[in-house]
Amino acid sequence: MKTSHKLTIINDPIYGFITIPKGLIFDLIQHKYFQRLRRISQMGLSYLVYPGAHHTRFHHAIGCLHIMQKALEKLVEKGVMISAEEKEATMIAILLHDIGHGPFSHAMENSIVEEVHHEQISLQFMETLNAEFNGSLTLALRIFKGDYHRPFLHQLVSGQLDMDRTDYLKRDSFYTGMAEGNINTDRILAMLNVKDDVLMIEEKGIYTIEKFLVARRLMYWQVYLHKTSLVAEQVLVRVLKRAKELTNKGVALEASKPLSFFLKKKNAEGVFNTQALDIFSALDDYDIVSAMKTWCDHEDYVLSRLSQIIIYRNLPRIKIKKKPFAKDFIEAERQRAKKMFKLSDHEVDFFVFTGTISNQAYTLKKEAINILTRKGKVIDVVAASDQLSLKALSKVITKNYICYPKHLN
Amino acid sequence: MKTSHKLTIINDPIYGFITIPKGLIFDLIQHKYFQRLRRISQMGLSYLVYPGAHHTRFHHAIGCLHIMQKALEKLVEKGVMISAEEKEATMIAILLHDIGHGPFSHAMENSIVEEVHHEQISLQFMETLNAEFNGSLTLALRIFKGDYHRPFLHQLVSGQLDMDRTDYLKRDSFYTGMAEGNINTDRILAMLNVKDDVLMIEEKGIYTIEKFLVARRLMYWQVYLHKTSLVAEQVLVRVLKRAKELTNKGVALEASKPLSFFLKKKNAEGVFNTQALDIFSALDDYDIVSAMKTWCDHEDYVLSRLSQIIIYRNLPRIKIKKKPFAKDFIEAERQRAKKMFKLSDHEVDFFVFTGTISNQAYTLKKEAINILTRKGKVIDVVAASDQLSLKALSKVITKNYICYPKHLN
Amino acid sequence: MKTSHKLTIINDPIYGFITIPKGLIFDLIQHKYFQRLRRISQMGLSYLVYPGAHHTRFHHAIGCLHIMQKALEKLVEKGVMISAEEKEATMIAILLHDIGHGPFSHAMENSIVEEVHHEQISLQFMETLNAEFNGSLTLALRIFKGDYHRPFLHQLVSGQLDMDRTDYLKRDSFYTGMAEGNINTDRILAMLNVKDDVLMIEEKGIYTIEKFLVARRLMYWQVYLHKTSLVAEQVLVRVLKRAKELTNKGVALEASKPLSFFLKKKNAEGVFNTQALDIFSALDDYDIVSAMKTWCDHEDYVLSRLSQIIIYRNLPRIKIKKKPFAKDFIEAERQRAKKMFKLSDHEVDFFVFTGTISNQAYTLKKEAINILTRKGKVIDVVAASDQLSLKALSKVITKNYICYPKHLN
Amino acid sequence: MKTSHKLTIINDPIYGFITIPKGLIFDLIQHKYFQRLRRISQMGLSYLVYPGAHHTRFHHAIGCLHIMQKALEKLVEKGVMISAEEKEATMIAILLHDIGHGPFSHAMENSIVEEVHHEQISLQFMETLNAEFNGSLTLALRIFKGDYHRPFLHQLVSGQLDMDRTDYLKRDSFYTGMAEGNINTDRILAMLNVKDDVLMIEEKGIYTIEKFLVARRLMYWQVYLHKTSLVAEQVLVRVLKRAKELTNKGVALEASKPLSFFLKKKNAEGVFNTQALDIFSALDDYDIVSAMKTWCDHEDYVLSRLSQIIIYRNLPRIKIKKKPFAKDFIEAERQRAKKMFKLSDHEVDFFVFTGTISNQAYTLKKEAINILTRKGKVIDVVAASDQLSLKALSKVITKNYICYPKHLN
Repeated sequence: MKTSHKLTIINDPIYGFITIPKGLIFDLIQHKYFQRLRRISQMGLSYLVYPGAHHTRFHHAIGCLHIMQKALEKLVEKGVMISAEEKEATMIAILLHDIGHGPFSHAMENSIVEEVHHEQISLQFMETLNAEFNGSLTLALRIFKGDYHRPFLHQLVSGQLDMDRTDYLKRDSFYTGMAEGNINTDRILAMLNVKDDVLMIEEKGIYTIEKFLVARRLMYWQVYLHKTSLVAEQVLVRVLKRAKELTNKGVALEASKPLSFFLKKKNAEGVFNTQALDIFSALDDYDIVSAMKTWCDHEDYVLSRLSQIIIYRNLPRIKIKKKPFAKDFIEAERQRAKKMFKLSDHEVDFFVFTGTISNQAYTLKKEAINILTRKGKVIDVVAASDQLSLKALSKVITKNYICYPKHLN
Repeated sequence: MKTSHKLTIINDPIYGFITIPKGLIFDLIQHKYFQRLRRISQMGLSYLVYPGAHHTRFHHAIGCLHIMQKALEKLVEKGVMISAEEKEATMIAILLHDIGHGPFSHAMENSIVEEVHHEQISLQFMETLNAEFNGSLTLALRIFKGDYHRPFLHQLVSGQLDMDRTDYLKRDSFYTGMAEGNINTDRILAMLNVKDDVLMIEEKGIYTIEKFLVARRLMYWQVYLHKTSLVAEQVLVRVLKRAKELTNKGVALEASKPLSFFLKKKNAEGVFNTQALDIFSALDDYDIVSAMKTWCDHEDYVLSRLSQIIIYRNLPRIKIKKKPFAKDFIEAERQRAKKMFKLSDHEVDFFVFTGTISNQAYTLKKEAINILTRKGKVIDVVAASDQLSLKALSKVITKNYICYPKHLN
Repeated sequence: MKTSHKLTIINDPIYGFITIPKGLIFDLIQHKYFQRLRRISQMGLSYLVYPGAHHTRFHHAIGCLHIMQKALEKLVEKGVMISAEEKEATMIAILLHDIGHGPFSHAMENSIVEEVHHEQISLQFMETLNAEFNGSLTLALRIFKGDYHRPFLHQLVSGQLDMDRTDYLKRDSFYTGMAEGNINTDRILAMLNVKDDVLMIEEKGIYTIEKFLVARRLMYWQVYLHKTSLVAEQVLVRVLKRAKELTNKGVALEASKPLSFFLKKKNAEGVFNTQALDIFSALDDYDIVSAMKTWCDHEDYVLSRLSQIIIYRNLPRIKIKKKPFAKDFIEAERQRAKKMFKLSDHEVDFFVFTGTISNQAYTLKKEAINILTRKGKVIDVVAASDQLSLKALSKVITKNYICYPKHLN
Repeated sequence: MKTSHKLTIINDPIYGFITIPKGLIFDLIQHKYFQRLRRISQMGLSYLVYPGAHHTRFHHAIGCLHIMQKALEKLVEKGVMISAEEKEATMIAILLHDIGHGPFSHAMENSIVEEVHHEQISLQFMETLNAEFNGSLTLALRIFKGDYHRPFLHQLVSGQLDMDRTDYLKRDSFYTGMAEGNINTDRILAMLNVKDDVLMIEEKGIYTIEKFLVARRLMYWQVYLHKTSLVAEQVLVRVLKRAKELTNKGVALEASKPLSFFLKKKNAEGVFNTQALDIFSALDDYDIVSAMKTWCDHEDYVLSRLSQIIIYRNLPRIKIKKKPFAKDFIEAERQRAKKMFKLSDHEVDFFVFTGTISNQAYTLKKEAINILTRKGKVIDVVAASDQLSLKALSKVITKNYICYPKHLN
């Protein structure tokens, strides 16, 4: 581990200057586990729709660190007691909260790393780092896991209005150019408060919260679940599944060492062993994209065609609607695709497929967003909202999609 | 070639909506030669300093297309006659002006693709596309090469105040967060005019031009030649040189097919043959970075250490000053490095090296920026500027740098 | 009427450059009826809360003109037939839609110009201008009044999603610094369409509409009905009422000629006669504020104290809640104020008063916002919104307030 | 003096939230001397050119307060010792630095308040406030006057790179929409340092300084000295001069009490007496504009016509060039105007007049901007700038103008 006394200020297009405190936080950022996040895109393949969306998980984590620092300082200004240790630990917890993300995380978790979720991997990375840094991440780990006796610190890391969401909504909105998803970070931070160690939003911030939830929903439907991103991700899932299937059959496939490892690996454990974690730490977008580039010329028709779909951005057709698609329609598309590409019944699953997407802006079942009234009373945001929509925002919306090859004219 | 009738509006964080005209321009964007620009970072390794700077050459080219369209429309509004063919051709010329850029272009041109410059490759790609599209790029090629009888169209593509620079200054300033490099695109476009088929800036735009030149100089010294970017790029040059050297000695190196081709290739021609061009079209950032990731574990100490320097962002020390560094100082660092890493005289060149950087904001020798006065007279911007600094801006500034391994404390 | 051939481009902090077409529109802007809008603040006394909110009705009208032009051009691009006459007339209608606003309009309409509403005055000004410009505003007047056979033109001027609201939300959000009220004008314009001469929003714009409505509601509660603005406006109402009361009693009051006229005038007609209209055209913020400045030293305690409250920004206390305030509480405050300032039963009404405020983001009873589906079907936005909140947004929210002098500690 | 515990956060469109410290600073802001700045436009009549430029001296002073606070906090972070008293005093000094500005200051100082400059009046106001606040502004006054032994505190208030300029450049650029004058406040603040109690700019900030100076020069020529603003201001000077001339002749003129006082006053003292200061404190834009509104109908042709020129925005012609205008040309325009308006030799001076404007971006004679090198050496910014332009920027540029009535076609 080496440190430079230079890299302490980072230019961020969103927040301006970000100052990185020296010492443990700085050293964690320098660590190769963290530096690897520079090679993992925050929004997966969304750049196929939004060409500006090439920002990385590294940048998001740094942004989270910054607003967490601001949030904690605001709370101290309001008289909340937060010790130096708690401050550093909470900042570390948010800095590392996503360190377990692999490349194209959602696609990976639905294909070749099926049984180990990124939250679990984040925890394993943090524990490994804790050992390497002689236990100095212990408090950060407790806060991250929600084991610390002051819940608001965990809520700032992971809750319905946490610094993770606050940064990613703003950042993703900025880089996609979807200005409508923009949120007012300064105002959100200014509205935070704590009562009995529980995170609160001050009453006057109620429209800010509503705006946050509406922006978040908008970003889900217009960006994260944009139909073109969705189809690209679903094709990527199938590229990886096919590659794993071929590997298991003994077909030779060019791939980097880390990727080969995961293509061969049986997913059974639910947790990585030390070796798997170490190899996982070497896996990033470059392994996946480079592999697809070579697979464009692979002799397996399914693998090569799916790879080309992404590399040459030649995406299939996708339709979305509220009701499920009729069986007849699906079957007709399957028959057409089988004929067009000469596919088996099994192979056509890679080209014609259906699924559902859903989103819920505010979850009633989880911990509520608490509103602190001027008089010090605590009420749920849904009750506090004089008008509306929060109840409406807590409805789960589900939609159906179908993907199939374009019809040639 | 397939076209979608969907992808006609692109969200750009800078200009808002960009509309892509259907037909030839749309088809060129869909072409795999152009889609590959999605995988080539506009600013090379600058993201090691400016974590937001992950925008691509694809995005820059689309941005150029957009402002070229605006510029041509402004000129037509002012009464300049521009035919539909000229408009399309000029838009194509700017769209494709950088299509010959490879990954980390400046580093490549100084290492493994030494004798073929990206301008030359752009031209070859355009000619290949012209053949594929049945000659419909002929006028675009003439404008690109400056062979067309109306010089202002070429000047908009390539000149001291062209749409390329106008977009990249704004875009790089935006993504790095270096707000001071921001320029007022709308105002620049509003100031354009044409007299006798030569590009002019209207007199009232003179401070706008000066601001453009000052912003450009600022971006050079604070961003493009930022010492950390510089050292990273220089190390990358040496990674690639070492890899080529080893390849020529017969040492086995993991690398993608396209990269292997260029590592083996003798650079003699100055021009690519058809095969080389085709392979070049498959080369992007993913080949280079993936190779360095595997080379981190290579048995050659020089190659592995240099690769680690970039992948783990553990950069050497760099100093910059006006005068050349003293021979004694250089020699002392060489001896120290040789001893520290057990290097031969040849090998130490990869770790301790010097060089120069220089920049000139406005070139007196090239075609001048012409100012059109209210009364219709044409004068050079340097003469027109009542105060100046433009003369000062035309001075070439040169600086010296030295890189060497960090001293351990 | 004089015209300058210079003033054709206006710098707007929000939209950049605004180009004013020469001819009739330019001449209307130069007219003294329109120039007077430079002296009328768009947001009344809101600058006492938001110090940046000094923008004028002039600026808002120019902004409306600009986006109307853009909107009409977008529609033409989409194939809607709009003649040059219709375009100019619609632009004039929006330019002049608020020309009847006097200074501190809402306060005026609740005090000294009670029975003539600004819409009525706008109409009278437009008719006067139409006579002066030889009937060339006839079509604009028809569109303004909704008498033209193509309703979408009127809807763009005045509807639930018109160019007036689109500009003022953006502009007021900008100048107050209340970033959360910001809306994406470009996107709104891009979503407009017309079917059977009725204004439509394209289906993909549904979240944009919802965001517009949420932003509008937020601006109402956080800005337009901000309690400090509210109390300032209510005090202003009482300053003017008191001044009228004193004038009617024969007490001498310094005031400009136009203001004196309205202080003396009996409000009975519902319409201005020619003389009243002409005098009204000379009335602006300067008359009101200058009068209050001199009234600060008037011998009538009520008038001088109320004037000081505004001029020295020494505002009373205001409380807002959902339920009406208890009679006992109100009476206690009245008694306290009477005693503190030695007021009569009538006079205390100027210092202790209650009222209600209400807002409805989307009105179900008015013309609906129509959504045009991809397949060309027309549905109401409330039905189209898959989730929520639009029904909730159409609920009328009412709150109660009370104002009374501050208690001294 | 009453204080509210509410008004402690102010929304600023530029900096977001501004927090006002309670206590003395808060009480000074509440004082009527300071509240009056709400009625004084920062940029005089510039809104006749830039319709957004209605921001006030109140807002600018609050902005200065905010960045001064930030600047002092940055310096403390860098290890500069600044006591709580020094911090408060420096913040007060910047808050009140412009409190002596009257309405349309430059026009006033060249017409009816000729011999008392606003700096002098600011000082008198501060001394009066110091007496009222029991000597608690004593240190602020010393810093303001440059009498304190730590010069950097004065330099932050008033120097070549002070917080006054830093705020007004940014603010005026923002409200005019002249984006090119925008400066990066965050970066400027981040570059400040102190050595031996003298203000320094860190070496890496050198391009930031240059950009600041270029932006300032651009704002001078394109905004502050914009020819339309210039002609409007020069006409205003003549309105006031004519009003004073008529008053001295005994002609009755409607005007507010404070304005009447200054129209009658002989300017001899160079300093206001207590009465004059008190009356001055009641003078603001509303007195001047209201007077001009009534004077539009005054029987004196010169006064009424000049007033109409401003109120109806019907400005004369202005020409600007480097060389003085030929005597013949001036004389011809005088004769034309005399004839056209039937003016005497004396009266024509109000309609046809010449003058000069000049600007110097960086003054070599004043205290230099000091650059602090990485090694702790101090050098002048002109010497430090490797290239250019700062020497060029220190040249005084002078231009000539002539104004005369428009020729009718």
